[in-house]
Amino acid sequence: MNKNVHTFLGCDADYEQSRIVLFGAPFDSTTSFRPGARFGCAAMRQESVGLETYSPYQDRDLCDAGVFDGGDLDLVFGSAQKTLEQIRACTEDILRDGKLPVMMGGEHLVTLGAMEAVVKKYPEVRVIHLDAHADLRDDYMGEKLSHATVMRRVWELVGDGHIYQLGIRSGEKTEFAFAGEHTELHPFALRAAAQVAAEVADSPVYLSIDLDVLDCGVFPGTGTPEAGGATFRELLEALLHFAPLHIVGCDVVELAPMLDSSGASTATACKVLRELLLLLRH
Amino acid sequence: MNKNVHTFLGCDADYEQSRIVLFGAPFDSTTSFRPGARFGCAAMRQESVGLETYSPYQDRDLCDAGVFDGGDLDLVFGSAQKTLEQIRACTEDILRDGKLPVMMGGEHLVTLGAMEAVVKKYPEVRVIHLDAHADLRDDYMGEKLSHATVMRRVWELVGDGHIYQLGIRSGEKTEFAFAGEHTELHPFALRAAAQVAAEVADSPVYLSIDLDVLDCGVFPGTGTPEAGGATFRELLEALLHFAPLHIVGCDVVELAPMLDSSGASTATACKVLRELLLLLRH
Amino acid sequence: MNKNVHTFLGCDADYEQSRIVLFGAPFDSTTSFRPGARFGCAAMRQESVGLETYSPYQDRDLCDAGVFDGGDLDLVFGSAQKTLEQIRACTEDILRDGKLPVMMGGEHLVTLGAMEAVVKKYPEVRVIHLDAHADLRDDYMGEKLSHATVMRRVWELVGDGHIYQLGIRSGEKTEFAFAGEHTELHPFALRAAAQVAAEVADSPVYLSIDLDVLDCGVFPGTGTPEAGGATFRELLEALLHFAPLHIVGCDVVELAPMLDSSGASTATACKVLRELLLLLRH
Amino acid sequence: MNKNVHTFLGCDADYEQSRIVLFGAPFDSTTSFRPGARFGCAAMRQESVGLETYSPYQDRDLCDAGVFDGGDLDLVFGSAQKTLEQIRACTEDILRDGKLPVMMGGEHLVTLGAMEAVVKKYPEVRVIHLDAHADLRDDYMGEKLSHATVMRRVWELVGDGHIYQLGIRSGEKTEFAFAGEHTELHPFALRAAAQVAAEVADSPVYLSIDLDVLDCGVFPGTGTPEAGGATFRELLEALLHFAPLHIVGCDVVELAPMLDSSGASTATACKVLRELLLLLRH
Amino acid sequence: MNKNVHTFLGCDADYEQSRIVLFGAPFDSTTSFRPGARFGCAAMRQESVGLETYSPYQDRDLCDAGVFDGGDLDLVFGSAQKTLEQIRACTEDILRDGKLPVMMGGEHLVTLGAMEAVVKKYPEVRVIHLDAHADLRDDYMGEKLSHATVMRRVWELVGDGHIYQLGIRSGEKTEFAFAGEHTELHPFALRAAAQVAAEVADSPVYLSIDLDVLDCGVFPGTGTPEAGGATFRELLEALLHFAPLHIVGCDVVELAPMLDSSGASTATACKVLRELLLLLRH
Amino acid sequence: MNKNVHTFLGCDADYEQSRIVLFGAPFDSTTSFRPGARFGCAAMRQESVGLETYSPYQDRDLCDAGVFDGGDLDLVFGSAQKTLEQIRACTEDILRDGKLPVMMGGEHLVTLGAMEAVVKKYPEVRVIHLDAHADLRDDYMGEKLSHATVMRRVWELVGDGHIYQLGIRSGEKTEFAFAGEHTELHPFALRAAAQVAAEVADSPVYLSIDLDVLDCGVFPGTGTPEAGGATFRELLEALLHFAPLHIVGCDVVELAPMLDSSGASTATACKVLRELLLLLRH
Repeated sequence: MNKNVHTFLGCDADYEQSRIVLFGAPFDSTTSFRPGARFGCAAMRQESVGLETYSPYQDRDLCDAGVFDGGDLDLVFGSAQKTLEQIRACTEDILRDGKLPVMMGGEHLVTLGAMEAVVKKYPEVRVIHLDAHADLRDDYMGEKLSHATVMRRVWELVGDGHIYQLGIRSGEKTEFAFAGEHTELHPFALRAAAQVAAEVADSPVYLSIDLDVLDCGVFPGTGTPEAGGATFRELLEALLHFAPLHIVGCDVVELAPMLDSSGASTATACKVLRELLLLLRH
Repeated sequence: MNKNVHTFLGCDADYEQSRIVLFGAPFDSTTSFRPGARFGCAAMRQESVGLETYSPYQDRDLCDAGVFDGGDLDLVFGSAQKTLEQIRACTEDILRDGKLPVMMGGEHLVTLGAMEAVVKKYPEVRVIHLDAHADLRDDYMGEKLSHATVMRRVWELVGDGHIYQLGIRSGEKTEFAFAGEHTELHPFALRAAAQVAAEVADSPVYLSIDLDVLDCGVFPGTGTPEAGGATFRELLEALLHFAPLHIVGCDVVELAPMLDSSGASTATACKVLRELLLLLRH
Repeated sequence: MNKNVHTFLGCDADYEQSRIVLFGAPFDSTTSFRPGARFGCAAMRQESVGLETYSPYQDRDLCDAGVFDGGDLDLVFGSAQKTLEQIRACTEDILRDGKLPVMMGGEHLVTLGAMEAVVKKYPEVRVIHLDAHADLRDDYMGEKLSHATVMRRVWELVGDGHIYQLGIRSGEKTEFAFAGEHTELHPFALRAAAQVAAEVADSPVYLSIDLDVLDCGVFPGTGTPEAGGATFRELLEALLHFAPLHIVGCDVVELAPMLDSSGASTATACKVLRELLLLLRH
Repeated sequence: MNKNVHTFLGCDADYEQSRIVLFGAPFDSTTSFRPGARFGCAAMRQESVGLETYSPYQDRDLCDAGVFDGGDLDLVFGSAQKTLEQIRACTEDILRDGKLPVMMGGEHLVTLGAMEAVVKKYPEVRVIHLDAHADLRDDYMGEKLSHATVMRRVWELVGDGHIYQLGIRSGEKTEFAFAGEHTELHPFALRAAAQVAAEVADSPVYLSIDLDVLDCGVFPGTGTPEAGGATFRELLEALLHFAPLHIVGCDVVELAPMLDSSGASTATACKVLRELLLLLRH
Repeated sequence: MNKNVHTFLGCDADYEQSRIVLFGAPFDSTTSFRPGARFGCAAMRQESVGLETYSPYQDRDLCDAGVFDGGDLDLVFGSAQKTLEQIRACTEDILRDGKLPVMMGGEHLVTLGAMEAVVKKYPEVRVIHLDAHADLRDDYMGEKLSHATVMRRVWELVGDGHIYQLGIRSGEKTEFAFAGEHTELHPFALRAAAQVAAEVADSPVYLSIDLDVLDCGVFPGTGTPEAGGATFRELLEALLHFAPLHIVGCDVVELAPMLDSSGASTATACKVLRELLLLLRH
Repeated sequence: MNKNVHTFLGCDADYEQSRIVLFGAPFDSTTSFRPGARFGCAAMRQESVGLETYSPYQDRDLCDAGVFDGGDLDLVFGSAQKTLEQIRACTEDILRDGKLPVMMGGEHLVTLGAMEAVVKKYPEVRVIHLDAHADLRDDYMGEKLSHATVMRRVWELVGDGHIYQLGIRSGEKTEFAFAGEHTELHPFALRAAAQVAAEVADSPVYLSIDLDVLDCGVFPGTGTPEAGGATFRELLEALLHFAPLHIVGCDVVELAPMLDSSGASTATACKVLRELLLLLRH
């Protein structure tokens, strides 16, 4: 009898043979409104059995994608600093081994840990950021490390003009003003995806998908659901524009599965992750 | 230590300085199918903390909008007559003070109480009515006062051709026949919003938004959810057409928050109300 | 005092005078992921009181449609073979009496029982299949009778080129390959409905609607919700293309009402069934 | 094919042969806190399929109990007066035919309609009232007809000393004072059931069970759940003390099934009703 | 980086060193009322992280108990026969290796598969059966293999007087009659546990715990919740009486985690399983 | 029109006239398993309208109790240190004004902030701690400030023999060992309440109620529900033993209202708080 190995749908490559390494970052301590994103990665693994490994959209199969799923990091709730450190270390290990890190959140702050590792290896990295929220506050009630400040912190790492924000439809006035000067922000919709893909075609790219970029109709299971977002088809179309890019890391964050008891949000998150993994040609 | 004042997002103007007065009408006794709209106004106040005060759609901020939130009326369940009387009195007070009343439901019948006050001050008022249901029955199982008859009662106040109905996709055959003779009904979608705005440009306007005009995908948290409705973007676009109008009162009704445990319906209702409040230039 | 007769919305014709016979097949034993479709037919009957009998889309009323509702079959959980036999017998009875059978699921496997009866009477029948999933596996973990194999079994009854699949966006690679040779599969969307209607205009048609063809935003209450599906408007538009056809039987399956506690999925299923029943001119 | 007759578990006697007549009163318009009791009777009928007709507690079977289920009254939401009139008329019919009326609520106010009929036939009737709440207010926010005043109204019909209240653990100070003078109130527990049974042994008895007499642990699915209540075993033991009495009518009220998504409250309500029906020897 | 091994709380012994082998049987196809027990074993594994490995009741720790968790069997929904065969084979393997099998359901029918293996090795085995339901029907709507017939089938394996049933409070009249002749049934409560333990002290014992033996207040998350059951303390007390017995196999079945969205049922199931595992001295 | 003041049931005294000051501490960032306690205080305020101000258990009324409700502190998620500082400052203010602080959680860590203030004023304070969990770990995954370590930190403030723990039924082995040397721990039940009351009769007392001391049947709405706990009656009885004590501060923590969609847990928490407030004679 064998031990019970538990992976995301079809991601059962051995570490050595794998091109892509998937891991979970179950953290949500800075979530300001409704917590629960900590359960996102476990739910995606659990519920992915309801999905096929094959994508008719891309005519590819996850079983052929060479993905290793290393499970979840053992994080401490209440300690953002330590959490980011653990994520950074894990991402560095994966990059050092020449593999592509894909992180499942957790809340959006976890992106910062991964970016710290990515920037070290790829100082010229561009960040494509799909989200409902700008996440550009300098602090949130005095805290520098928060899901609401994560892109501001990332900007401190990558600098002006290297962050491309799509689908943003919520934020304080000052965040939109900041974006006007320091990032390339395309509000409301994802129509600019092709244009953004063209602009970053020559750079390494980190892709961060906050699932609340989707409309709250199709994705209510998240801490701060926002109406007026993308349909799944629109998100998929945007992602397919990114397929030719040199993606060096990515994440899918902010699924809070308990908030959508129907399970549709988790199923949708799994499908987004499947399509994302199949996109990565590395 | 101060008392715990509880308002909708950013609506903390003093009464005297305010232009707009928000209040709740937590009533749902005539709801024929699934009750719960009584909890709508409290839920919107509670959950509005998850939303920003700033709207990137209108580039305006609720903190600058001069809105006073007077809390909920103390209504008696089971007594439609008394309820309407209380709403009428409250609306009259607000109008007398030269302010603009905005009511959070409750079920749709509450509109009738507000309209009784509005018609007294503005006999030529036009009503723009966004809804899935025509609400034009003469009686509902013998009752004249019902959420299913409210627009018929309003018609008795404002007369032929003064009610503009948008998004209607449900009703009895006789209701559509009545509408054919007495109201201007644009079924299914909100595309006629610009045309309607042009037609009422010279009159005072009361705007009544039954949130089930939204598709039940994005707004399941309502007594009688209906497929085939508007997306949030479509609703927002319609509302923006109404911005130049002389709006003298409005309401947002039929959120039943317990029916959508994900909270997305409440979040959407809050966003509709924010956009509506920012629209009012008075 | 009379016995408590319980029917779907307005379907209270006597059997003898009826043109259409509605019945329920509360079975879900082969559901591989999340069960609950067994409760679909009872929920549709129960919740249909929230809907009007009149359709403004078709300007017709269910009260005039001559529909008899015979209630649910008494099925045995765990026994697919016996279940299919009972469904076949019931469908045969209805067809023998010159009436049109409309079945409420239950999971999708129930379609096979109805098709066995239909094929006997109409050997040249064409099948229009609206679904998120291809349902074309030859077996599911060794089982020949499964919701995941039902269209393969139906193909064994009707043969090459007689099945038209619309909206399919999930399946194994081999299923899409099979479809390429044996069925006419239009993936992702329902845009091909008019074309399909034209192709089958001269044949008897069986119409099988797996409700997960709808996007999981508007229809989360199903065993395997899938993002990227049709809106209600798109589904309705497709159905209206089928109105002129010679439909000899149909079904609406895979509502699992407990999975959507908001009730919106059940309400949507009721509306789909109402429009379907009004479509049938027989 | 037969029409779909829908009854509570095993209650399929013909009206003429029946001793007991069950009917539903789906009303909750005066519910002051959380509505939903209107769905109680339908849910009990629907979910009773999960229960056996045989009671090992009483060694009796519902199939032998001669119960006719007449379905639900067609009530108007928002109109307490008309509702009570309909219930009174129905109860009178049943009593006139020499049968025993058993009513499923709905909210507790419905008891008043039944009592009006019962008092006419049995002026000396005693009322045994199991409840968490005293329901003895003279008015509720000015309204005389309310679920919170129902026992005060019943007291006006039956007079001093004829109401026996058990399990009461909530009320205003004035209600307990009123009870001290006009009813026999045994607070908190049901231990006095044997004593009460002895006291009313020579009179006709109406038994009204507000299910929130049960602890909110075992019965959360009710408008105003109250901790500190009876276990099911305690309630059953109390009921068995009432078996020898001359019961001339009874009701089971205040199940609000949507409030307990687990279904356990509905299952418990069904079991209480089964035991109650088997208790009635008439 | 290591593969993601997923076990029940603290059950991470290697197979070779283990005394006890835990495995899951995620099957519920014969469930007649509300399915979902298929998710029981996965939920227990997932949610066990909320529990301590140490039991203050027994002053023992799961980390010292030598338990190997082999994950879930790969079962086919809809096929009771094949499922039982797989369970039998797995149980035989464990027994052959001299270890004690502990199975997590799944519905109660899975007990039959385990018993077939146990009886082969221990023909004189006694069965202690804790349950709300007698499960002694000869068939359920014609089916011999069903959760409602499982103890009848087990009786065919072990014969008269070898089954001890505790807590039973539901069943058909014929089941209680059958029990009167063929099993030792102690209805309603668990008080007879000490007596039963004494009677089977000299035999190998199989212990089957249907969690609905607990009151539906503390355990609503099951297909057929039943009021009037044991408290957790009563169940624990009964189990402690079984500690000195020669237990050769056991199971914990009928958790349907989705039916209790609070998670309390799953947490309770985990605690029962922890106490059970610590009880086994083998 | 007045501003909308929002208080817990009947707690509308002015600050100056009040004896007792109620405030909320909406924090849950260190919750290790299921978050949501941050919403506890708001939910108790909101749902308390379903409860009477009068307690028949104590024959007292909250309207006479002189309680001021100051609302919730404005806390930062993710920062335990700052949160505790804010709670300490608020508690100091209340104590300085000669009033009795009553805090609504939030998770249990908030108790530490209040205790820091209390110990300064009452160095000899005794702590009565009702809980399912010992909360005596020295650190939780390296963190000193956690809901799982709170009583260990409190012990550092008050020293050996000054903490009395009741109802504890979960913890690591080392926690029970620590309690054996440093606190007075009465496991499993609350029977020792009278004895504890006698022991602390001459000291100032701080009373901390973690609501998961209640059985998870009656109180599932908490992060880590535990079977085997107290009934409401048992908890109430214990509290009544504490009425004569010199209580100088107290808290009610760990309601996570979203985890119990029935609302029964919130209703129970409100009732516990009402009884607690009425107990305080100060």
